[in-house]
Amino acid sequence: MLTRHTAHTEPTLRHTSPIDLPHDDMANALRALTMDAVEAAKSGHPGMPMGMADAATALFSRFVKIDPSRPDWADRDRVILSAGHGSMLLYAIHHLLGYSDMGIEELKRFRQLGAITAGHPEHGHTLGVETTTGPLGQGLTTAVGMALAERMMNARFGDELVDHHTYVLAGDGCLMEGISHEAIDLAGHLKLSKLIVLWDNNGISIDGRTSLSTSMDQPARFRAAGWNVISVDGQAYHAVVDAIAEARACDRPTLIACRTTIGFGAPTKAGSESAHGAPLGAAEIEGARERLGWNHPPFEVPGEVRAAWSQVAERGRASREAWERRLAISGRRADFEAATGGELPADFDEKLNAYKRMLSEEAPKVASRKASEMVLGVINSATDLTIGGSADLTHSNLTHTKGQVSVAPGDYSGRYLHYGIREHAMAAVMNGLALHGGFIPYGGTFLVFSDYARGAMRLSALMGQRVIYVMTHDSIGLGEDGPTHQPVEHLAMLRATPNINVFRPADAVETLEAWQLALHCEAAPSVLALSRQNLPTFRTEHSEENLTGYGAYVARKPRRRRDVTLLATGSEVELAFKAADMLALRDVDAAVVSMPCWELFEKQSEIYRRGVLGVAPRVAIEAAGRLGWDRWIGERGRFVGMTGFGASAPAPELYQHFNITPEAVVDATCDLLTCA
Amino acid sequence: MLTRHTAHTEPTLRHTSPIDLPHDDMANALRALTMDAVEAAKSGHPGMPMGMADAATALFSRFVKIDPSRPDWADRDRVILSAGHGSMLLYAIHHLLGYSDMGIEELKRFRQLGAITAGHPEHGHTLGVETTTGPLGQGLTTAVGMALAERMMNARFGDELVDHHTYVLAGDGCLMEGISHEAIDLAGHLKLSKLIVLWDNNGISIDGRTSLSTSMDQPARFRAAGWNVISVDGQAYHAVVDAIAEARACDRPTLIACRTTIGFGAPTKAGSESAHGAPLGAAEIEGARERLGWNHPPFEVPGEVRAAWSQVAERGRASREAWERRLAISGRRADFEAATGGELPADFDEKLNAYKRMLSEEAPKVASRKASEMVLGVINSATDLTIGGSADLTHSNLTHTKGQVSVAPGDYSGRYLHYGIREHAMAAVMNGLALHGGFIPYGGTFLVFSDYARGAMRLSALMGQRVIYVMTHDSIGLGEDGPTHQPVEHLAMLRATPNINVFRPADAVETLEAWQLALHCEAAPSVLALSRQNLPTFRTEHSEENLTGYGAYVARKPRRRRDVTLLATGSEVELAFKAADMLALRDVDAAVVSMPCWELFEKQSEIYRRGVLGVAPRVAIEAAGRLGWDRWIGERGRFVGMTGFGASAPAPELYQHFNITPEAVVDATCDLLTCA
Repeated sequence: MLTRHTAHTEPTLRHTSPIDLPHDDMANALRALTMDAVEAAKSGHPGMPMGMADAATALFSRFVKIDPSRPDWADRDRVILSAGHGSMLLYAIHHLLGYSDMGIEELKRFRQLGAITAGHPEHGHTLGVETTTGPLGQGLTTAVGMALAERMMNARFGDELVDHHTYVLAGDGCLMEGISHEAIDLAGHLKLSKLIVLWDNNGISIDGRTSLSTSMDQPARFRAAGWNVISVDGQAYHAVVDAIAEARACDRPTLIACRTTIGFGAPTKAGSESAHGAPLGAAEIEGARERLGWNHPPFEVPGEVRAAWSQVAERGRASREAWERRLAISGRRADFEAATGGELPADFDEKLNAYKRMLSEEAPKVASRKASEMVLGVINSATDLTIGGSADLTHSNLTHTKGQVSVAPGDYSGRYLHYGIREHAMAAVMNGLALHGGFIPYGGTFLVFSDYARGAMRLSALMGQRVIYVMTHDSIGLGEDGPTHQPVEHLAMLRATPNINVFRPADAVETLEAWQLALHCEAAPSVLALSRQNLPTFRTEHSEENLTGYGAYVARKPRRRRDVTLLATGSEVELAFKAADMLALRDVDAAVVSMPCWELFEKQSEIYRRGVLGVAPRVAIEAAGRLGWDRWIGERGRFVGMTGFGASAPAPELYQHFNITPEAVVDATCDLLTCA
Repeated sequence: MLTRHTAHTEPTLRHTSPIDLPHDDMANALRALTMDAVEAAKSGHPGMPMGMADAATALFSRFVKIDPSRPDWADRDRVILSAGHGSMLLYAIHHLLGYSDMGIEELKRFRQLGAITAGHPEHGHTLGVETTTGPLGQGLTTAVGMALAERMMNARFGDELVDHHTYVLAGDGCLMEGISHEAIDLAGHLKLSKLIVLWDNNGISIDGRTSLSTSMDQPARFRAAGWNVISVDGQAYHAVVDAIAEARACDRPTLIACRTTIGFGAPTKAGSESAHGAPLGAAEIEGARERLGWNHPPFEVPGEVRAAWSQVAERGRASREAWERRLAISGRRADFEAATGGELPADFDEKLNAYKRMLSEEAPKVASRKASEMVLGVINSATDLTIGGSADLTHSNLTHTKGQVSVAPGDYSGRYLHYGIREHAMAAVMNGLALHGGFIPYGGTFLVFSDYARGAMRLSALMGQRVIYVMTHDSIGLGEDGPTHQPVEHLAMLRATPNINVFRPADAVETLEAWQLALHCEAAPSVLALSRQNLPTFRTEHSEENLTGYGAYVARKPRRRRDVTLLATGSEVELAFKAADMLALRDVDAAVVSMPCWELFEKQSEIYRRGVLGVAPRVAIEAAGRLGWDRWIGERGRFVGMTGFGASAPAPELYQHFNITPEAVVDATCDLLTCA
């Protein structure tokens, strides 16, 4: 039987649990189930689970507070497998802890169609998977959001109701990705002491030894970010236990660098990249069973090992029951449940609609980013679920409202986050805030910098999280900053992404309606693409109904017949109105359709869509690329928009330069109708 | 007159130049021109240029080796303004150095339409701008690529011909962005000692003090990455001179942390975020002139200050002339000029075509990623311009060819880069390699992880650089890894981006043709979207002509009439062929059109395009989202593809599950033709 490395840190601290557990066998059960499942699937990643089995056993057996029978218990610890390819580690643990969806048959169907044991852990697909991981670094950064949410909920509801840890299992890849820098800087700055990261320091990546591509001193790097760092032998159960205990006592976030051997136990592949991402093969598995002293058939785990894992689940159940007793007698119960349920107040829509009426009456000519700020003032007064922020563009995104206090290191009572110049982390942290529960996060940057946040925005969509992206400066209308800052392809990029609502409101009223829809949309993220430049309010007639909810609607009816339909979004709706006026002088009767949200329009009935689009020729106007518009304009249609990158100049000159003008719309229409 | 801070580092090293320059006035000229230009433009960023004027003067006056009369001199130093919003610093320097395009009138037209003084520096738009910056962190990372290119060219051509530095001016934002982590880790690992970064450590970002969002110990962080770090008073000219001299002597890359005051000189706004990104206003400018002792009218620079800057240019000219004498007598001159010219060998296409003939004859059934590897074997033998690499997916992307040696710390003679798990840095470093000249970089990752590289990929396109992205596992065809790894929206995202050719070849022959086009495309990047799964070769008849160059072509002619046209790309062309066979049994005559590159197809004549698309109804098949396809299928067309995210299962099952099958194509066709 293989001997564990000697522990470098001798146990000195008292453990949190007196249970005397057969930890070697508990870990070997994880290894064996991993080897067997990967072999059965003929694909998967055995290396990480086998290397981290001891550390994971230490974490779960002594510390993790979860109740498998109530995977959604609000005060549970969050455990994040940031190295998502090691999914079998999590599935094996969940199986042994008794999650109701994780029977042995599911392990046998690892990576098969319809199995809950997907290649990478998917939130919403499998019980107890706190966030979807696989794209490296996302889990770590999302965990920062969860750890922050815990502190913020704690600031609101106290230790009695909110007091849990966020644990992360991260690999070399997670720490090499750029997003990890944003994550650890933010976590260190905010002193998220209940965030504990176990790094699988195995020195191997897919190409070979990590020394092929990095010489980073990770402990020094984390210390530079204000973290507590502990280095241990990751195969030494007690050393890991001690490290976690020490981490829990620290007033800063902790990195536990676990030196491990990838594929620990495999006779020829351990310690090599060949153990990373492919089945070990029958002979190697047999050899590993021998070395590990694990003489049980595939997928079989002896009763005493199962019993040990069950004890862990029992401890969690007891914690949860104690917590429920506290909740039952808490004076804050209703508030707490409303927060974790993410429920907007009953009078929320009433307040918003009253403000909408006022906007229609006053018809302000403001940028939609400004309208957003005005609406946010109402929203943030009407609910305290919303948590604002910006990636260092607060005064440009206009995401901050009056009296909104900033979260600061050690003081988590605020409702505004200075995310710093970290768009990617902002998106992932917002995912974490939303996943944790208790909050509706919104965060701002320029639309063009959705590029930097893409990885995490895609996960917002894939996980169906209520995260709201406030993306201002949404076209060449931002002007002088030039092509690096002017989005051209980003609306298409976001519209192409499944399960995300992309709003481009055309005036203050549509901006309010977009916010209302975004806040009510619990199963998908929203993007609000907002203008830098002022826009007139054309929705001067109040409607209780949220017209933006139709995705598109006739904003200006034709006077008699409909000769042409002008389709536009956002700031270009104004151009469509002007073009319609000019066309009227030529006796061309134009309908103007505002299309603030394609995704919602697609969900309308075909009859509604046909009615809006009409049978007359169509001209679309959008200060962005054409891709996607052909669906709406049809084969005969015309498009007035961008054909390449923008340029640096004042916005009005750019619209002229790129020929996105009412005159261009008139020309395109006349060309189409040969109305000259 | 404002007194400079006391220098913390006393001059101890000999300077590289004996010129006794009026450095305070040289720096103040930069400040004054910045204030005046931003004021005239009514927009812009005065804070950084005013804070970094002394450091920039130190850098340029004593060290930088450039000849403004030959901005493209191959052995010039590269100076990268990573904090691109401080563009006026660069423009003011270029003006005073005498760049031919940078007359005073251009400074007066800062940020105006058509001016070369764009809001952010744009490569190709303005002489001497080495790379386009503005999106933070890109300049720093691109500079890593340039510094690497310098070492690699040096390894090939020696000190006589290649011996220059790469200097970066970076701000807090550059160092907060995640990409900076990837950049500094890679640069430290590779010991790029001729890379010197001057950090404008002013403690201010847009939202306010950087302490709002970061507590990072930047020097410690850079040291952890293997960098040399020097901290100086950035307003102390001699201290900066000494630091740069010390940095040049070090065998590692150096960070010079320059403590500065943002907006230095401005009486009320200096040291505050109000100096960052808006004109100072007339009163503040007047006060600054007084404090700085700069009593000259707007846009006027006295002769002695101009003379001092001219001396710097003269020094550069002398260096360039000496270098040209060395080149003239070098035995490597022809090779060097071919490399820096980026010229493929004369027999290159002949070799590729011979291999294409063989592929057509042998008709291998291989994944297009495998075909790519085979073709790369020929390419890498035929030219040594190509530099391969992968973001730690070498054996999956199949980007490495036989005998290709890896670049290693201190040994830059290789032709393969282990970029590590750093997609964003890979893209930006490839931009740097291409911009530097001498190389054609290609780099691999999974197509889905274009998300992580988006920021830099957009700059490849905006700058029109010959960078080749090898994006494998391009659909649900990757199988078990599941939705986090399966691209759905990425083809649309890339197709929406201007000036980038997105190839999705359908077989080995098209893969070769795509490579050939990408290598010949000097003014745009290319993406090769390649399959994980095997594909049959249908191009069994050799054609000297590159059919992929048409973007789309009829791959299977109808037998008599054309009842339907099946459009497909990549791995779905096989499905279209099968569907055509099945339709033939129902007496439906189908043409199959392969569309490997939409961008090139759009460039064909309308007659050609109409001929290919035909007038019969069309059905498109692509294992991706629909966005963009309506342009090709028209209003009556059908689309067989993805409507949401993928799933984890073996690939063949996923194609069935998502109904992307020949049967589905037949059904769609019959529905369309009511041929049931």
